[in-house]
Amino acid sequence: MQQPDVTLDTIRSARERIAGHTRRTPVLENDTLNAMAGAQLYFKCENFQHGGAFKARGATNAVFTLSTAELHGGVVTHSSGNHGAAVARAARLRGVRAQIVMPHNSSRAKLEAVRRYGGEVVLCEPTLVAREAMAARLVADSGSVFIHPYDDPRVIAGQGTIALELLEQIPELDWLLLPVGGGGLASGVAVAARALRPTLRLVAVEPSGADDAQRSFASGVLCAPQQPTTIADGLRGALSARTFDLIRRHVDAIVTVDDAAIVQAMRTLWQHLKIVIESSSAVPYAAVHAGTLDVRGARVGVILTGGNVDLDQLPW
Amino acid sequence: MQQPDVTLDTIRSARERIAGHTRRTPVLENDTLNAMAGAQLYFKCENFQHGGAFKARGATNAVFTLSTAELHGGVVTHSSGNHGAAVARAARLRGVRAQIVMPHNSSRAKLEAVRRYGGEVVLCEPTLVAREAMAARLVADSGSVFIHPYDDPRVIAGQGTIALELLEQIPELDWLLLPVGGGGLASGVAVAARALRPTLRLVAVEPSGADDAQRSFASGVLCAPQQPTTIADGLRGALSARTFDLIRRHVDAIVTVDDAAIVQAMRTLWQHLKIVIESSSAVPYAAVHAGTLDVRGARVGVILTGGNVDLDQLPW
Repeated sequence: MQQPDVTLDTIRSARERIAGHTRRTPVLENDTLNAMAGAQLYFKCENFQHGGAFKARGATNAVFTLSTAELHGGVVTHSSGNHGAAVARAARLRGVRAQIVMPHNSSRAKLEAVRRYGGEVVLCEPTLVAREAMAARLVADSGSVFIHPYDDPRVIAGQGTIALELLEQIPELDWLLLPVGGGGLASGVAVAARALRPTLRLVAVEPSGADDAQRSFASGVLCAPQQPTTIADGLRGALSARTFDLIRRHVDAIVTVDDAAIVQAMRTLWQHLKIVIESSSAVPYAAVHAGTLDVRGARVGVILTGGNVDLDQLPW
Repeated sequence: MQQPDVTLDTIRSARERIAGHTRRTPVLENDTLNAMAGAQLYFKCENFQHGGAFKARGATNAVFTLSTAELHGGVVTHSSGNHGAAVARAARLRGVRAQIVMPHNSSRAKLEAVRRYGGEVVLCEPTLVAREAMAARLVADSGSVFIHPYDDPRVIAGQGTIALELLEQIPELDWLLLPVGGGGLASGVAVAARALRPTLRLVAVEPSGADDAQRSFASGVLCAPQQPTTIADGLRGALSARTFDLIRRHVDAIVTVDDAAIVQAMRTLWQHLKIVIESSSAVPYAAVHAGTLDVRGARVGVILTGGNVDLDQLPW
């Protein structure tokens, strides 16, 4: 399979490819949050995306890049949830099988989302090694195509379409804050935003309990991931060589926030913005809310990534 | 004080008057909710309105209709919460004092909202008689203007602007579902929607534990309110002669839903639409979710009124 580079052009092509199958999500503002931050905050609400998360963008771009012949054996991925549901949905739109490898401790909401879109859930142990081994076996058995959650230029280009939309909706941003886990969203958004707005201050925010991106960025060398311990389950993935390279070239800084700050930020956004977001979504705003970043007087875009939570298991 | 009729013209004037001070709220759609209903549902999200509720519309229209001379003593209202915060906010925009009479058992979130906008909270016993007596005393003491939560044509016209916006955003609706409590929103929206779309099926939905509007509508005579018992605290008010008359002329039907259906609908909207709404907001959708209304195959507008909840006191 060819692995082209990710550029503004591939992101623009992704946008055309996925246009009929993904939503242009709204941008919300709130006076109270602005007053608290002393800034103008613009929240790009990917929790309203199909499947409740931005992952629909990358997964749809990847699946729709493939030919009918390439898709004869269906698609396979491993995912803690949102990417799996997104691949299942995209496969159903193409009328092909999707097998989704998920850790057996995945939240009920995320398992249900995959099944709702017709995906076949294959449970495994909650380790990256187990997920990758199971996915490889399924590919070997069924002749299917593997779609990595983030280490794939088609997936990265799809996630980058968020930046194209946001910069049309709010053209004059000073800062753009984004979460980083495996780096699919961060690298795609960074490529697009840097190309369109060379002086935009691009900051990635990471949970301190899964800070491989911050350590790699600081040292200039891709660090081996340690066992992540954070409530932000969507950001436990580790950078790949590809996402690290794109992030290093285009992102200005990476800062970290702890779980207490993440939960406080999550609750604050529910309370004032009146939206349901998952803990991982609160990570970029947590850096503002906790005072890690001083954005006073600026116009700040904040990407909210998803809203798939178990309403019986709220962290407060 | 003059009390003009509520017409499409007064609603259009209200819209111009409040345009710079209220939000044009988004309309959200969701594939899962559509599949469950067998219909196309369009949710008008007034939980994203300033102050977290549609009440900003009516309160702002009322306060901005008054002259500086009329406002010298400030404004007074009584409210279980959202109207109070909206009057406080509108008064602050005009630079005048707002005294808000609230029952002492109001939720913390609603008390905080009034104070955040600079309103002076005056606590009273949680009965309508106590609220009205306290408000009358404040008006007598301070020469202020009383702004009723719903029995006021300026307030009703302001709430009616929701229909103007929604019918621009989604022009071809077959049904429009709205909540009814005191009837300010229901009567204003009904006047505007009926004038713009004579054949639209307009249905008001009411909690069965506060069903004075349904009983009045069925009998053709304004019924005396009984002690309301419903989780939907924003809909405990009773129709006035004015709102009853407008509703009787323009609404096609009133149906009721019980508290269990309201809570289930509220949770379903949080889960799938990814928004925070209060229990009163879930009432119109509850009639679809519980099967009270058969809207299959139709295009259905649903007005979601507000999102001010205590996140520590969720009803599930």
